[in-house]
Amino acid sequence: MRKLATRTLEAIKYTPGSLLILDQLALPHETIFEPILNIQDGHAAIKTMKTRGAPAIAIVAALSLAVDVATRAAKHEFKTVPQAVEFLNSSLEYLKTSRPTAVNLFDAAHKLSVVIQDSAKKATSPSEVTDAYINAAEKMLVDDVQDNKNIGKHGAAFIVENCKNKEDIRVLTHCNTGSLATAGWGTALGIIRDLHKNGQLKHAYCTETRPYNQGSRLTAYELVYENIPATLICDSMASALLHQNPSVQAIVVGADRVAANGDTANKIGTYQLAITAKHHNILFIVAAPSTSIDLSTKSGKDIVIEQRPAEELVTITGLLEGKNIPATVRTAAHGVGVWNPSFDVTPSELISAIVTERGVAVKTPGKSEFDMKAFLQ
Amino acid sequence: MRKLATRTLEAIKYTPGSLLILDQLALPHETIFEPILNIQDGHAAIKTMKTRGAPAIAIVAALSLAVDVATRAAKHEFKTVPQAVEFLNSSLEYLKTSRPTAVNLFDAAHKLSVVIQDSAKKATSPSEVTDAYINAAEKMLVDDVQDNKNIGKHGAAFIVENCKNKEDIRVLTHCNTGSLATAGWGTALGIIRDLHKNGQLKHAYCTETRPYNQGSRLTAYELVYENIPATLICDSMASALLHQNPSVQAIVVGADRVAANGDTANKIGTYQLAITAKHHNILFIVAAPSTSIDLSTKSGKDIVIEQRPAEELVTITGLLEGKNIPATVRTAAHGVGVWNPSFDVTPSELISAIVTERGVAVKTPGKSEFDMKAFLQ
Repeated sequence: MRKLATRTLEAIKYTPGSLLILDQLALPHETIFEPILNIQDGHAAIKTMKTRGAPAIAIVAALSLAVDVATRAAKHEFKTVPQAVEFLNSSLEYLKTSRPTAVNLFDAAHKLSVVIQDSAKKATSPSEVTDAYINAAEKMLVDDVQDNKNIGKHGAAFIVENCKNKEDIRVLTHCNTGSLATAGWGTALGIIRDLHKNGQLKHAYCTETRPYNQGSRLTAYELVYENIPATLICDSMASALLHQNPSVQAIVVGADRVAANGDTANKIGTYQLAITAKHHNILFIVAAPSTSIDLSTKSGKDIVIEQRPAEELVTITGLLEGKNIPATVRTAAHGVGVWNPSFDVTPSELISAIVTERGVAVKTPGKSEFDMKAFLQ
Repeated sequence: MRKLATRTLEAIKYTPGSLLILDQLALPHETIFEPILNIQDGHAAIKTMKTRGAPAIAIVAALSLAVDVATRAAKHEFKTVPQAVEFLNSSLEYLKTSRPTAVNLFDAAHKLSVVIQDSAKKATSPSEVTDAYINAAEKMLVDDVQDNKNIGKHGAAFIVENCKNKEDIRVLTHCNTGSLATAGWGTALGIIRDLHKNGQLKHAYCTETRPYNQGSRLTAYELVYENIPATLICDSMASALLHQNPSVQAIVVGADRVAANGDTANKIGTYQLAITAKHHNILFIVAAPSTSIDLSTKSGKDIVIEQRPAEELVTITGLLEGKNIPATVRTAAHGVGVWNPSFDVTPSELISAIVTERGVAVKTPGKSEFDMKAFLQ
């Protein structure tokens, strides 16, 4: 496995035979790394939400089986190739039940089962199959981090090239798109990491990201952890910030899904940030791996918006003041109706660029839409 | 005193000799009316924030002295005119110490001390002075409510006249500008009350109004209390709402201060709502008594923005789930910087109309600024 030379926050710490995950349930108040020794530990970490974020879930599932099978192989538990294949396949099926709606997890399990099948065909000993699996799982981690690093590199370069005042680059981000949501580094937050690493970032701002507070809980935690100069604001303050400080020259966000024309579904609040970016004439950048681009979705009109429970908006969980124990409080008046969409769609005309590991997609001058099909070719 | 025929929420319940205030510290979870028997009670209610909102504070102070002096007068405590004058003046001085920064309170105390002085000049008995005071204090309540009712009337008429689809009028508001912030009825929320009373309102939406949650705590409470069909949203959801539902045809907000050119300082988040109103081509209306118009402030550039403590943003107080007792939880990561401006300034070009008790100020076609001086003449 290639060594990842990174000093960034690692929510997934892996070396051959050993896996530690950062318990996100304890964040931002406590930093606890938990050992994952086998598939049961991996399944539990995903099910209880200690590991969150679609790419992170897939990687933790894959690596929990890698450490599990490495331990068993060291003890010579598998006597035949079919024994090893049977264990690996049934383990993947079991891991898929940890979060039955996670598409990335299913994709990863499918790819890994193909690896198992292919290696079994030519294997002469069970260790050849288990080694093939372990290598493939490790490669997923490396590739995901590498994709994020490339997103960071391309995005940072794009901002530096296209901003007006290169001496005072400040960037605002939304939700959490960092090491806590991916295998490492992050997408939109990866761009901020790259700017910081290159000495090109003066300051980062993150929104709270109501109602689930991914910004104040997770992004703020990552920024503090890495000593990136950062300020937390309420979602409602973004426009006042842009007006007050023209050095905030870009807003960078992640994506749940990018349609063929560039319309982007992302965490609720993204659309409003894109509108204010346009009003203040600054860059609005979407950062996502190319796997988030779905050419079968023609435009944002084809995206159905999921509604979340009202409880998520009218109650807040945090650390009880003075007692340092988790507690949930209700803030809102009882009986009021609640609208709680999980994301919104930002139309392509408000987006300056879509940054992927392959490079930066921009619009043809004069066009209001992206041609993501051409970009992917 | 003129009878106020209203079925709206009354945070200040006054009849001659009796004053009850709605304890806003217990809101939105409990509705507790507390008797105010004398100036000590009035002072304490303001100091402990049971009464909030600049106009409400002034009225509660004035009326607490009215009930106090009525009780004393009934017992014939004042033997001479100077005795009554001395008690009234020293009481006003004492009440001013309850919230030393409240401009409305100081204004009201000044106007009432003029009434005391004027009546003392011609009074032949102490009851003439105390009666003059009581009448003046009662008139403040009536006038403030009447001003709000006129704001409501003018604002509702303006929206109905200028909206595109009169059959499905939905309005979004921000912060709390209702009975809980004024002597009654409210400014921006007064407009919503009027639309509802007239059968012209299909639905009201209110933002949470982070970080202090005046929307989810107070406005949502008022809307539920009066059975106005209403939905609470996060501040970040306003744009998604306007995109999803074109029947939301106006955003109405209050004002801390309106400059001579119409630039308006109001609760943080207002500016962002004005930007999205413009983007979606809907009405953006400021509602305030004409006393909020400050002609000595030429434009928004002359307004200094107050910064509030970080604690207000990173902790939230609510009702502890399961235990029904107030508690404060910390949500954000420790160590992150916080920017917490209490308000922002919305430039006049984003404002459709400024509604006061005197009528509706609009811009001359082709101009981007209001002429508030001409409006007030």
